[in-house]
Amino acid sequence: MRVAVLNGPGDLEVAAVGVCGSDTHYYEHGRIGRFVVESPLVLGHEASGRIVEVGAGVDPARVGRRVSIEPGVPCFTCEQCLAGRYNLCYDMRFYATPPIDGAFAQLVTVHSAFAHDIPDSVSDDAAALLEPLSVGVWAARKARVGAGTRVLVIGAGPIGMVAVQVAKACGATSIAVADINEHRLEVARELGATQTIDSRTQSLDELTERPEVLLECSGNGPATIAAIKALAPAGRVVLVGMGGDELALPLSVVQERELEVTGTFRYANTWPTAIRLAASGVVDLDRLVTGHVGLAEAADALLAGRTDPAAIKTIVCPQR
Amino acid sequence: MRVAVLNGPGDLEVAAVGVCGSDTHYYEHGRIGRFVVESPLVLGHEASGRIVEVGAGVDPARVGRRVSIEPGVPCFTCEQCLAGRYNLCYDMRFYATPPIDGAFAQLVTVHSAFAHDIPDSVSDDAAALLEPLSVGVWAARKARVGAGTRVLVIGAGPIGMVAVQVAKACGATSIAVADINEHRLEVARELGATQTIDSRTQSLDELTERPEVLLECSGNGPATIAAIKALAPAGRVVLVGMGGDELALPLSVVQERELEVTGTFRYANTWPTAIRLAASGVVDLDRLVTGHVGLAEAADALLAGRTDPAAIKTIVCPQR
Amino acid sequence: MRVAVLNGPGDLEVAAVGVCGSDTHYYEHGRIGRFVVESPLVLGHEASGRIVEVGAGVDPARVGRRVSIEPGVPCFTCEQCLAGRYNLCYDMRFYATPPIDGAFAQLVTVHSAFAHDIPDSVSDDAAALLEPLSVGVWAARKARVGAGTRVLVIGAGPIGMVAVQVAKACGATSIAVADINEHRLEVARELGATQTIDSRTQSLDELTERPEVLLECSGNGPATIAAIKALAPAGRVVLVGMGGDELALPLSVVQERELEVTGTFRYANTWPTAIRLAASGVVDLDRLVTGHVGLAEAADALLAGRTDPAAIKTIVCPQR
Amino acid sequence: MRVAVLNGPGDLEVAAVGVCGSDTHYYEHGRIGRFVVESPLVLGHEASGRIVEVGAGVDPARVGRRVSIEPGVPCFTCEQCLAGRYNLCYDMRFYATPPIDGAFAQLVTVHSAFAHDIPDSVSDDAAALLEPLSVGVWAARKARVGAGTRVLVIGAGPIGMVAVQVAKACGATSIAVADINEHRLEVARELGATQTIDSRTQSLDELTERPEVLLECSGNGPATIAAIKALAPAGRVVLVGMGGDELALPLSVVQERELEVTGTFRYANTWPTAIRLAASGVVDLDRLVTGHVGLAEAADALLAGRTDPAAIKTIVCPQR
Repeated sequence: MRVAVLNGPGDLEVAAVGVCGSDTHYYEHGRIGRFVVESPLVLGHEASGRIVEVGAGVDPARVGRRVSIEPGVPCFTCEQCLAGRYNLCYDMRFYATPPIDGAFAQLVTVHSAFAHDIPDSVSDDAAALLEPLSVGVWAARKARVGAGTRVLVIGAGPIGMVAVQVAKACGATSIAVADINEHRLEVARELGATQTIDSRTQSLDELTERPEVLLECSGNGPATIAAIKALAPAGRVVLVGMGGDELALPLSVVQERELEVTGTFRYANTWPTAIRLAASGVVDLDRLVTGHVGLAEAADALLAGRTDPAAIKTIVCPQR
Repeated sequence: MRVAVLNGPGDLEVAAVGVCGSDTHYYEHGRIGRFVVESPLVLGHEASGRIVEVGAGVDPARVGRRVSIEPGVPCFTCEQCLAGRYNLCYDMRFYATPPIDGAFAQLVTVHSAFAHDIPDSVSDDAAALLEPLSVGVWAARKARVGAGTRVLVIGAGPIGMVAVQVAKACGATSIAVADINEHRLEVARELGATQTIDSRTQSLDELTERPEVLLECSGNGPATIAAIKALAPAGRVVLVGMGGDELALPLSVVQERELEVTGTFRYANTWPTAIRLAASGVVDLDRLVTGHVGLAEAADALLAGRTDPAAIKTIVCPQR
Repeated sequence: MRVAVLNGPGDLEVAAVGVCGSDTHYYEHGRIGRFVVESPLVLGHEASGRIVEVGAGVDPARVGRRVSIEPGVPCFTCEQCLAGRYNLCYDMRFYATPPIDGAFAQLVTVHSAFAHDIPDSVSDDAAALLEPLSVGVWAARKARVGAGTRVLVIGAGPIGMVAVQVAKACGATSIAVADINEHRLEVARELGATQTIDSRTQSLDELTERPEVLLECSGNGPATIAAIKALAPAGRVVLVGMGGDELALPLSVVQERELEVTGTFRYANTWPTAIRLAASGVVDLDRLVTGHVGLAEAADALLAGRTDPAAIKTIVCPQR
Repeated sequence: MRVAVLNGPGDLEVAAVGVCGSDTHYYEHGRIGRFVVESPLVLGHEASGRIVEVGAGVDPARVGRRVSIEPGVPCFTCEQCLAGRYNLCYDMRFYATPPIDGAFAQLVTVHSAFAHDIPDSVSDDAAALLEPLSVGVWAARKARVGAGTRVLVIGAGPIGMVAVQVAKACGATSIAVADINEHRLEVARELGATQTIDSRTQSLDELTERPEVLLECSGNGPATIAAIKALAPAGRVVLVGMGGDELALPLSVVQERELEVTGTFRYANTWPTAIRLAASGVVDLDRLVTGHVGLAEAADALLAGRTDPAAIKTIVCPQR
C-alpha cells in the first residue's frame, strides 16, 4: 500500500498515528468549516515513523531516523510565512484536510523540514502525540503562561490534558480544570491540575483562585462564556476548542477588564519545544494513550471516544 | 461655587470641559453598566484649567500653570496599579462616575500627578480634549498600530476622529472609516482617512485594502461583526465603543485567522504621548470643537450631538 | 532596639534576614556605584517577619500575619512608577541603601503594600529569600525564558542558583551553569542544572546545546564576553551580576546575531510570582541556607561567603 | 552583458542601484567581518528594475512590472526562517556578499517573492532606496519607536537620514540628530529632525529632551557610548552602524536604567512597510539622491561620499 504524496522530498514508514476529534468530525460530517471532503480522503495527522527514503538535496544520513511529522507544509514565501506565522498561510497543505491525504497509511511523503528528529527517549506513540502537544504549546504561548500564572482549562479531552501539562511546564502554579467526565478530571489531576471542577455539579464560583488565563478546549459556548466572566483583569482567553459559529462575547466584561481574546489555528514553530518537553519528561504523552489498533480498525477507532468514557487517545499502528 | 473634592492636593480653576457621550448617557439613563447615579452628580471629565492652589508637598511653583486633567486617580498600590495598568484599579476614583463628581464646575480638586502641564501651543479646548485623544492613543497602542499598518475605524464620532488622527500619527498609511453621517466622513477625510465608507449605501466589500487593525468606535454590533470579518489574518480588534451586552463573535473567523480581540477601559500612561501629539501639531483637536457654552447651558449641550448632524464636540466654559 | 523608619504604615518584628553580597560590599567598601554610605547605616534587605502593628488605614486584621518584605518603596506617581517600572523610580527608598536603613534589626517599618502575606508552607528563611528569588524571576522575565528554552547561567552563587531554579520552573529544558566552585556546581545540578562547566578546567566549547538565553550572575567580564559569544541567533543576555564599569561588548556578534542585551536593577511586581513558586515547592529556597546567626554575629556573617567554599547563604535571626 | 544568477525564477532589467557604504568598504578593504571577497564580485544591493522574464511557476503577468529588489534570499526552512527571522538564516544568499554577485549589472536574477511590486508614485531611484529605508524601518521596529517617542539618531549619513524619517513616520515627536557634517544636519532638519547637534562643537548635554531611543547609525564608538549615557530609564539602543570590534558598554548605566541594547543585521519583512511609507509620501527617498552615474562610472561613485561633503547617495543607472 502506498499513499498520496505531499509536496516534499522524502518517504516515511508510519509507526503511530493518533486519532483526533477532527478526524472523527470529517468521518461523520464530511466537512469542518470551509474545508469540505469532496473525494476519498485518507485521514490522520498525528503521526510518527521512520524515514525510508530521502529526496534530492536531503541528507541521506537521515534514512533510518525516527521522526515526528509536523503535518502541515506552507508555501514558505507568502507574507504570513515570511513573518513566521506559517500556520496562517493560505496555501498550507495539511494532512487529512481536503484535498490532502493524511497518515492512516503505511507510507507517507513529507517535507524534510517538517519531519522532526526525535530522541530515543520519546516513544513512537509520544512522537505521534507531539502534534496535539503542539496545540497546547501554541495555546500557552498565545496566553503568555509563565511562572506563577493562574490558569483555567475548560475541557479535559486530549487537548485539555496537554494544555494542563504545558501550563505546568511553563510554571503555572494554579491550574483549574473543568469537565463533565470525572475520569478525565482524575487524569487531569494526575497530570498537574491543582483544582478540578465537575461541571455537572459544580460551577466556576468554586474556583479557589481567580484565573488570569483561560485555555478553552471544550468548544462549549455557555461554558466558555462562564469561564470568560471568571477571569481577572488583564486576563487572556485562548479559544482552542471548535464549537458553534458564534460566541456571545460579554462585551462590558471584555472592556472593563481589558481581556484579550484570541483563537488558535494549528501552530507554528512548536515542534522543537514539544520535543524538548516530551524528551525531558516534563510532559507525559504516553499517559494519554488508552488503546492501539491496526489500520483495519481505524474506522472503529474514530468513534471510540464516543462510547468509552475512559478512552482518551487511540493510536493507529499501520505496520501492525 | 465650589465642587466636591477628589483625593488630591491641589485646586484648579476650570477653563474648558468637553461634553462626552458618557456624560449624555448618565444624564439620560442614570447609569452606565455597573456605575449607577444614586445622588446628585456633577458631570464632565474632559477638562483643562489653571492651578490656583497646591496642597502640602506639591511644588508651589505650579500655581498659575495651565494643565490638562487626567480624570481618574487610582489607589497606586494594588496589583494592577503596580503593574502599570492603573486603569484597571478597582479603587479608581474617576470624575463624573458615581459617587465622584466631575468638572462641570468652576473649581475642582485634582491629584498633582494627574494635572499635566501643557505648553502654550495647546489651547484650553485642546487641553480638555487630551482626554478623548488619550482614548485614541490607548486604542492604537493596544492594536499595535505602526508604520504602514492598514487600519479600519468604525464610527466617526469624536473618538473615531481621534482614532483616525492617532493612527495617522503612528504611521498608518491606509485608514478607512465607516459611518452613516456624511459630514463626519468628510471631516475624517480631512483629518487623515484615506477611504471613507458611507454605511447607508456602501458595504465593507468596497474596502480598497484589507485592514489589519479594527478600531471599533461605534458600539454598533452588526457593524462590528462585519468589520471583524473584513480583517486580514493575524488582525487585531480593539473594541472602544460601548454597545449592547453581548457581541456575537464569529468564532471560526477568530480562530482561522488568529485574530486578537480586546476592549479598552479608559487608558493608562497616555497623557505624555497625547500632549506631544497635540503640541507638535500632528494631531488637531481644535478642529473637533463645534461649539462653546457656559455652565448654565451645559444641560443643553449634553443633548446637542443628538440634534445637529454637524456637531462634533461642544465645550463647556465654566468661567464664561 | 528600634530601627529607622521607612515611609509606611506598619511595624514588623523581623524573623529572618539573608546576607547579600551587596551588604558585604557596603560593609567593605562603603559604596556601590552612585550610592555612598555617609553616616551609620543598618544593612540587610532580604527579610521576613511578623506584623506587630499597623498604621492608619491598614486592615488591623493584618497584625500577627507572617510576611515577606519587598525592601524598596517607590514614589508611586512618577512616570516610571505609573508605567509599572517602579524599580526605576528615582525616589525609591530601598532598605540598606544610603540613607535608608535596612533590616538587620528587631523591628522595622514597612509600607503595607510591600509586606507580602506568605502561606505557612513558606518558612521564615524562605520568606526572607523571596528577595533574591525575585532577582531571578525578574531576570527570567527579561530574558523571556519559557518552555523548552536553552539557558546558560554564569555564576553559581545564590543568584545563579535561584536563576537555575526559576529557569527550570519556566520550562527551560537545557540549563547549563558555569562556575569555579565545584561544590556550588554540585548544588546547581541538584537544583536543576542539566550541565555544569567548571571554568577552571573547562570552556564553553563543551556546551552540549547552544543557549538562547544568558543569565549573567557572576559580574566577571571575560566570562560574560565568552558566554555572549556562545549564544544562538536572536539570543537574549541579561546582565544581573555587578562587575567592572565597562563590558567590552563584541559588536559584530551582537549585530550579526541580533542579540538583545539588557541589565536588571532590582525587580518589579515579582513577589506574587516568587511566593507562588516557593509555596508550590517548584523552587527550594531553604536548600540555599547554610548557616544561621544572631544579630551580634551579623558582621562575621557578612564575610562568611569569603572563607567557606561550602557557604551559600547565611541567615541573620534578629530575635535569636 | 549578463550577471551571475541568484537562486530564483525570474530575470530583471536593472533600472537603478544605490551605492552603499558596504559596497565602498568591500571595494577598499575586500572584506566585511566574516565575509571575504575571494574572487571577482559584482557589487550593488540597493536595486530596482523591471521584470523581463519569469521562471516556472511564476505568474507571467508579472513581466513588465516595476519592482524593488529585496537583495537577500534565505533558505526558507531553517529554524530562523520559520520563526520569521529570515535575516538570521545562515544560508542567506545576499547580493554583493561573497560569493553572491550584486546588482551593478544590466540584468539580474531574483526570487519572485523578493521582487516587490511598486506603484507608479515610487520612482526608480526611490525603489532602489527602499533597501536603506528597510534598514531604518527595521531599526525603528527593534527600538519600538511610536507616537510621542523621544529619539536620538547618531550619524546623519543615508541610514541616519532614513532613520530620522522613519522615526517621524512612526510618530516620534522629538528627534535629535548628531553628526559632524553641517550640510547633512541641515538635510536632517528638513527631513524631520527637531534638534541637531554638531558634534564638532556641541555635546549631548545640549539635548533639549532626554531620549528614550538611540538609533546608532555612525559606527563611532565614543559617540555611541556618550549617546547611551544620555538615555532615559528603560531606554532602547539599536546599533545599526558598523564600527570597531568592541563597544565599551557602560555596565552600571545599562543595569541601573535597564537599557535594552541590540544590533541589527539587515532586516526582515520590511518591504511592504517601506513601500507604503514611500508611496504615501510620508518618507522622501528622492531627496537623498545627489548624483547619477552609468555603470562605467560605478567605481568612481563608490568613492564619491569620501570627497564631496554634500554627497548623500549616488545612484548607478545600468541602462544609461
